[in-house]
Amino acid sequence: MRFSGERDNITSKSGEEKFMKVKLGAKNCLYPLPTTLVGANVNGKPNYITIAHVGIMNLSSVSLGMHKSHYTNIGIRENETFSVNIPSIKMVKETDYCGIVTGKKVDKTKLFDTFYGKLETAPMIKECPLNMECQLIKTVDFPDHDVFVGEVIETYVEETCLTDEIVDFAKIQPILFVMNDRSYWKLGDRFAKAWNIGNELKNR
Amino acid sequence: MRFSGERDNITSKSGEEKFMKVKLGAKNCLYPLPTTLVGANVNGKPNYITIAHVGIMNLSSVSLGMHKSHYTNIGIRENETFSVNIPSIKMVKETDYCGIVTGKKVDKTKLFDTFYGKLETAPMIKECPLNMECQLIKTVDFPDHDVFVGEVIETYVEETCLTDEIVDFAKIQPILFVMNDRSYWKLGDRFAKAWNIGNELKNR
Repeated sequence: MRFSGERDNITSKSGEEKFMKVKLGAKNCLYPLPTTLVGANVNGKPNYITIAHVGIMNLSSVSLGMHKSHYTNIGIRENETFSVNIPSIKMVKETDYCGIVTGKKVDKTKLFDTFYGKLETAPMIKECPLNMECQLIKTVDFPDHDVFVGEVIETYVEETCLTDEIVDFAKIQPILFVMNDRSYWKLGDRFAKAWNIGNELKNR
Repeated sequence: MRFSGERDNITSKSGEEKFMKVKLGAKNCLYPLPTTLVGANVNGKPNYITIAHVGIMNLSSVSLGMHKSHYTNIGIRENETFSVNIPSIKMVKETDYCGIVTGKKVDKTKLFDTFYGKLETAPMIKECPLNMECQLIKTVDFPDHDVFVGEVIETYVEETCLTDEIVDFAKIQPILFVMNDRSYWKLGDRFAKAWNIGNELKNR
């Protein structure tokens, strides 16, 4: 990633104080994001691709930003179903590999055991500790990307990744992706409760 | 979060092996996601709200999944600009607070120093180590959510958060959000290179 950083003195709104920030140009830094393996049947056969440009739109739906050149897009359009599989850090080689080679040329399903759920056409990866089976509900069109929005229909998890019946991401050990340094990162420690720790500021 | 987990024996595609996964029902588990403070001018005044249901659509754009009831949505629609500010873990109280109280009733800008960039109507938070100034390019409508898609126009970073001129998320110390346990998590260690470590499987 080339750097075009310009040091700039910025004035805060009150106009009383100057401070310095580096301007990077138009650089997307909304990271880290969870690395996923997206599954779809293409021409009747399961295929998996590594996607980390993902997001949540509303509570029940996930989005996948997928370049239009990808083989997997054909299957998602055809079946209107897909899966989002969360690999753990011990699967990092297989996960990265699925982002390097294309399903047009390589049968990536040999790396994993595949299973299907209630939608019947969304292949899922047994070895991934967590799998979400999704129904395509929307496609948002960009010049070079299809953004597929799926409603989660069923979620499967390894029993060993639950703590008090709640999904425990310390046990999932997801692979977090940062584009800026083109690297995978681990999840750190849980350190605060949401909709809670901020209450301390309420009565200030 | 109530648990409706059903233990189920699942048969893999080859049909030779059975294994167990717990079915959670339709449970969104695409976590962790980065916790952001989204800035917008509402009725001519800056306001900030905590949003972690975010994503990347294509390389240059970010998405914000925001419930329609939020005050900030008014400003994003009006100005067609917003900012995405990445707070560090030391700002967790202020960050959580901005998700608890509404700008309709509380002036949250008192917590931070605000600055503006080239769009002039997207307020940004000086104390956040990273800020993205965004132009609204699309709104995806959901029954209860507006998904605002912004193109990043300029990115500002603290110089101390760069390593070899690249944004270093170990120095940013982002606040990662998990809905399942309603908690904030730290980022862990960088452990592998993307589009690289998977090459080891190429010649198998």
